[in-house]
Amino acid sequence: MAEKTKWTRKHLLGLRELSRQEIEYILDTADSFSEVNQRVIKKVPALRGKVVVNMFFEDSTRTRNSFAIAAGRLSADVIEFTKKASAISKGETLLDTARNLEAMGIDIVVVRHLAGGTAKLLSRSINACIVNAGDGFNEHPTQALLDVYTIRKKTGSLEGLKIGIVGDIANSRVARSNIYAMTKLGAEVTLVGPPTLMPPNVSQLPVKISYSLDDVIEELDVINMLRIQFERLGSNPFPSKREYSRFFGLTHERMKKAKKDIIVIHPGPMNRGLEIESSVADGPNSLILQQVTNGISIRMAVLFLVSTATQECKN
Amino acid sequence: MAEKTKWTRKHLLGLRELSRQEIEYILDTADSFSEVNQRVIKKVPALRGKVVVNMFFEDSTRTRNSFAIAAGRLSADVIEFTKKASAISKGETLLDTARNLEAMGIDIVVVRHLAGGTAKLLSRSINACIVNAGDGFNEHPTQALLDVYTIRKKTGSLEGLKIGIVGDIANSRVARSNIYAMTKLGAEVTLVGPPTLMPPNVSQLPVKISYSLDDVIEELDVINMLRIQFERLGSNPFPSKREYSRFFGLTHERMKKAKKDIIVIHPGPMNRGLEIESSVADGPNSLILQQVTNGISIRMAVLFLVSTATQECKN
Amino acid sequence: MAEKTKWTRKHLLGLRELSRQEIEYILDTADSFSEVNQRVIKKVPALRGKVVVNMFFEDSTRTRNSFAIAAGRLSADVIEFTKKASAISKGETLLDTARNLEAMGIDIVVVRHLAGGTAKLLSRSINACIVNAGDGFNEHPTQALLDVYTIRKKTGSLEGLKIGIVGDIANSRVARSNIYAMTKLGAEVTLVGPPTLMPPNVSQLPVKISYSLDDVIEELDVINMLRIQFERLGSNPFPSKREYSRFFGLTHERMKKAKKDIIVIHPGPMNRGLEIESSVADGPNSLILQQVTNGISIRMAVLFLVSTATQECKN
Repeated sequence: MAEKTKWTRKHLLGLRELSRQEIEYILDTADSFSEVNQRVIKKVPALRGKVVVNMFFEDSTRTRNSFAIAAGRLSADVIEFTKKASAISKGETLLDTARNLEAMGIDIVVVRHLAGGTAKLLSRSINACIVNAGDGFNEHPTQALLDVYTIRKKTGSLEGLKIGIVGDIANSRVARSNIYAMTKLGAEVTLVGPPTLMPPNVSQLPVKISYSLDDVIEELDVINMLRIQFERLGSNPFPSKREYSRFFGLTHERMKKAKKDIIVIHPGPMNRGLEIESSVADGPNSLILQQVTNGISIRMAVLFLVSTATQECKN
Repeated sequence: MAEKTKWTRKHLLGLRELSRQEIEYILDTADSFSEVNQRVIKKVPALRGKVVVNMFFEDSTRTRNSFAIAAGRLSADVIEFTKKASAISKGETLLDTARNLEAMGIDIVVVRHLAGGTAKLLSRSINACIVNAGDGFNEHPTQALLDVYTIRKKTGSLEGLKIGIVGDIANSRVARSNIYAMTKLGAEVTLVGPPTLMPPNVSQLPVKISYSLDDVIEELDVINMLRIQFERLGSNPFPSKREYSRFFGLTHERMKKAKKDIIVIHPGPMNRGLEIESSVADGPNSLILQQVTNGISIRMAVLFLVSTATQECKN
Repeated sequence: MAEKTKWTRKHLLGLRELSRQEIEYILDTADSFSEVNQRVIKKVPALRGKVVVNMFFEDSTRTRNSFAIAAGRLSADVIEFTKKASAISKGETLLDTARNLEAMGIDIVVVRHLAGGTAKLLSRSINACIVNAGDGFNEHPTQALLDVYTIRKKTGSLEGLKIGIVGDIANSRVARSNIYAMTKLGAEVTLVGPPTLMPPNVSQLPVKISYSLDDVIEELDVINMLRIQFERLGSNPFPSKREYSRFFGLTHERMKKAKKDIIVIHPGPMNRGLEIESSVADGPNSLILQQVTNGISIRMAVLFLVSTATQECKN
């Protein structure tokens, strides 16, 4: 068993392919980095001399900075690569760009891209470690890892927990990664949202479905409020913001129906007043800022683990 | 007395609230960092493992880079945060952005924003140290500190010096911070400019006013030529550039009336040929480049001092 | 002789002014850094405490990142300076910007600019070391250095090699620097391209000219396929892409006429299918990715050498 949980992957492309043991191994590793993050000098030499490229083709504050800070705490050098300042605008293909970075001797590529499968494509094309920081509607594994890590820190285990994921499931790579992580760790997941925001293949997922938050909120131990991603929603999938908020927003009023110790999480950035009211976002049940804090430990763990796997294995 | 001057603030929001002793304490600290900046290896481990966020919502070259270099010399890690690459464009509020950065474990936020009061707002909302790098028309404390530091390095003291601040006073946070710093250190300040560029509350300030540079230039020991900030001037406050230059520009001709050893400073970037002629900007009385050099020492001092105050006090 | 090859320049502005000994001295220095780049911890403290400014006024991926990684491996701090985030947009002149960075104590400026002569201009105006990363149609010395370094690593020497430089010679600073580097090291250079893409002064260069790739390909030891720079070509200098590719593209078909061990290089980014076919770019004769790898060693060598020259000499 201890043998089985030894980390052997040089990429983190998604959680779909990870075993429960592997996910727990990442969380356990994050625990030890979490301790580093409470020291006065929050720095270890684990990745000294390594170069991490933060390759973001979509805007991002928290994920990009979180990886940059995590890499810095491991003493890696970070190269920031954004679309605009790149050869992409000169017509170079993504793969040529990646191969060139690799030829410069970079060790880890953290990639976010609007096309699902980009991380996997890169992992097949270059030898550097690839960490998926969000690819299209596919996965956002480090977000889901920090979500389950935050829950586990509070409850000790996800086994048997009832978790609701609420909102724009169809457009959410966070939701997909969450479903894999949470169910593998033994939780029972219910997707909650209007039919227009449910993914097409929902019946094949190991989850329950509800079209009414009020129907299910009473029994939930954890509620994950997804961000309504206006920038991804082409045609309007619901009549109005007020309408959405009334049926699927986590309001102060609605919280009265929930368990006293329900855990509220949100991947951020929040649309305050839309999917979540400020009094809830900043209230006693919210672990939203702890998620951000834990994101550093999770990303340190992931960067560290994939880099240790580099020498011995090829995913 | 020595007791009183011990540094206890975890933020630097403005100079209005600082005592003379506190200002001098910063300048004395800068003196010791100034010595570091002359070494071959210009680096001390004072902030090793700390993260400084350079959070700029307005364009800036020198201030942003100056803080980045200063932080680097203290061995801090620097995260560059600019408006475009941020979650602000996804509708997240400034405070959520700041709280998230804080949750990632950053230690110091250096913030520039077009809204006056932003630094103060942040200091009340998050626990990290806040350093104001310019907020609207309010203050730009490190600029004024490097101004008085540059003067003090030359003259030994500001006590009794006659200083003219010339130009666009109304739109200048640099002028406001200058007035606080210079008068607290014992200088006599005269604001010089057209009535249209004087601030509305000018009569409440501990300064003299003049509408003619020619009237006052003879008696000045120091002249601070402000930049005409075209990007802030909506309607045209003076008939023409030539007109402005004729009355308020520091020309070679006008310098003949000044004291031989008058000190010329400018916060930069300069509009050469408008508020200052190149022969003066690059001439023997100019300390303009020394200001830039001293800016590094001042910012090292400020970053160092606020971080030492973190554990013990809450401003 | 050993005396003569000691490095004494504090700038690298172009290869035109370098002697063969100086070029070889850079390549030999790159050899020793090449060894560092194969270590597990790819870092040496050579430039610890030094600040390198990456000052790019044109888009660039590989050159900018290559310098950043090279500087990082020498333990320097890197300041990224791009046009948009700069005081240039406030009307400050290039020289004021550079003088200000210098006043902040930066040690080396790596500059790319669309105006030829920018690097030289800076070198005369400020005391920091200047490294030309491409100036207009003038030179791009580190690219040519990595080109000849890549060839030398394969062949041992350039003496007597027949090298073709193919494509848009007129608009290529890479071609100009290549001509200097290759001919000084003893190679025989032939420029190949349509008459519309030949430079006006071509008869004064120590090179042969050919308007047909098919005429010369058989005898070449090395072929350097330049990128067609659509963004620089105003009016269309050739009838169509297909036409260009037919006469001057390095196709699989055309490679059959070449020597079995011909070396294929390209400065990147490639227009696959236009000046080079993918099967050739990724084929056994291609050293294109090795060029990128070698670029790190070359830039480490250049940054290191100019900085060692700082104390003793002024170019």
